[in-house]
Amino acid sequence: MIRIVKIGSGVIDDGEALAQVLDSISATTDPVVLVHGGGKLATTMAERLGVPQTMVEGRRVTDEQTLQIVTMVYAGWINKTIVAQLQSRNMNVIGVCGADNNLILAKQRDPISVDYGCVGDVVRVNDAALRHLLHHYGTKNSCVVVAPITHDGKGNLLNTNADTIAAELALALVPSVELIYVFEHPGVMRDVRNPNSIIASITKQQAHELQASGHIHSGMLPKLDNAFRAVERGLKNVRIARYDAIHTAEGTWIR
Amino acid sequence: MIRIVKIGSGVIDDGEALAQVLDSISATTDPVVLVHGGGKLATTMAERLGVPQTMVEGRRVTDEQTLQIVTMVYAGWINKTIVAQLQSRNMNVIGVCGADNNLILAKQRDPISVDYGCVGDVVRVNDAALRHLLHHYGTKNSCVVVAPITHDGKGNLLNTNADTIAAELALALVPSVELIYVFEHPGVMRDVRNPNSIIASITKQQAHELQASGHIHSGMLPKLDNAFRAVERGLKNVRIARYDAIHTAEGTWIR
Repeated sequence: MIRIVKIGSGVIDDGEALAQVLDSISATTDPVVLVHGGGKLATTMAERLGVPQTMVEGRRVTDEQTLQIVTMVYAGWINKTIVAQLQSRNMNVIGVCGADNNLILAKQRDPISVDYGCVGDVVRVNDAALRHLLHHYGTKNSCVVVAPITHDGKGNLLNTNADTIAAELALALVPSVELIYVFEHPGVMRDVRNPNSIIASITKQQAHELQASGHIHSGMLPKLDNAFRAVERGLKNVRIARYDAIHTAEGTWIR
Repeated sequence: MIRIVKIGSGVIDDGEALAQVLDSISATTDPVVLVHGGGKLATTMAERLGVPQTMVEGRRVTDEQTLQIVTMVYAGWINKTIVAQLQSRNMNVIGVCGADNNLILAKQRDPISVDYGCVGDVVRVNDAALRHLLHHYGTKNSCVVVAPITHDGKGNLLNTNADTIAAELALALVPSVELIYVFEHPGVMRDVRNPNSIIASITKQQAHELQASGHIHSGMLPKLDNAFRAVERGLKNVRIARYDAIHTAEGTWIR
């Protein structure tokens, strides 16, 4: 069973949370694909560089300067620091983005209601390349760390939502795959201040109701959208869980 | 025969020169390892971020902020734009740094005369990993693009001179390997303003004389140092050539 684990800024920016995720990954004998975001650092870097940022429904409008920033931050700093840290845990790890080995071909999003600029929608995942990258050396556990940058096959990089990438990679590996969205909360919650309000499993209908009543915040929407779409397309094991619950059955299961 | 091609900022920052290199690489049926620098963009980015830079004998003193910048610029933006551009030339390309697959293990340089900070000297190249990464898919030519960032095996990234990395990768693949330092001039020249002053082959002794008489500039020194060391350690085919001469015998041969 291949495990796809997606982590966002809340985990990446918290040294202890990230260390727990990396410890969990190195403790398993199953191959892992770790997909990371890193939006908060990208936003900080853009501020320091004086490049104004616009978010629409939790997604970043990506002009050419912003594409350079997110590629530097995601595929450069975050990807390689995670690789080095996993490598020190005696794993065999490679960090890639979607352009590497033509892993994730994408198409620039049509500017219909919003012009997102250099943002790509996934066209095709190269599952043979992914399996090749997960190839073991000796007895070491293997891990592929994926930065949410894709390409269009014509030489252009594109910024793609990391939650979407995690879902698409999982779908390319059906059936022997598990998809876990890992973040700083114990799951989807009715009240983010109340740890007992965790929802053990959630349907699309329930999610719509929680969204309508204002219980689900904007950052959760792409995660849930992608999770429901993955389930609809045939993925059986999809879960949203806290960083310390990768090897448990805890969190919110997507139905 | 595996070909190791190293390009620096003079080629990377010149769109046409870079395109010529990438065209040459995609035209060969031999696997290629393309090692890139990118120091000029790193310096620009450091200036924009307000992080002062210090160079000693052509090498960058690398504090923690500078390590983040060079990792972003080299392993992020430059590496992935080159990967996307080669991929659009119908090649099978993967971009890595030395931490990926434990490709290049390094050790932080001892602060003897100069404290270079997070700068690494190469300890060991993982040639099995390199050959695995060059594995062909179908009929496509394969290329590994290497950013000059290494790791110490303890979770830390290190900044390592790209000329050195190219030489170390070539030495790990002896005997069936060729090493070409590609830049914007036709070779090592007695007078950089006179294209007819190119030196067809050069010994260490001759290089010392040219350095003493002020004919060789500072950027050429690490390149020549690495080239001579590679020849002394058993590499037969080492050449310094212009970006349009990869498939020729032109340039300066190192003896």
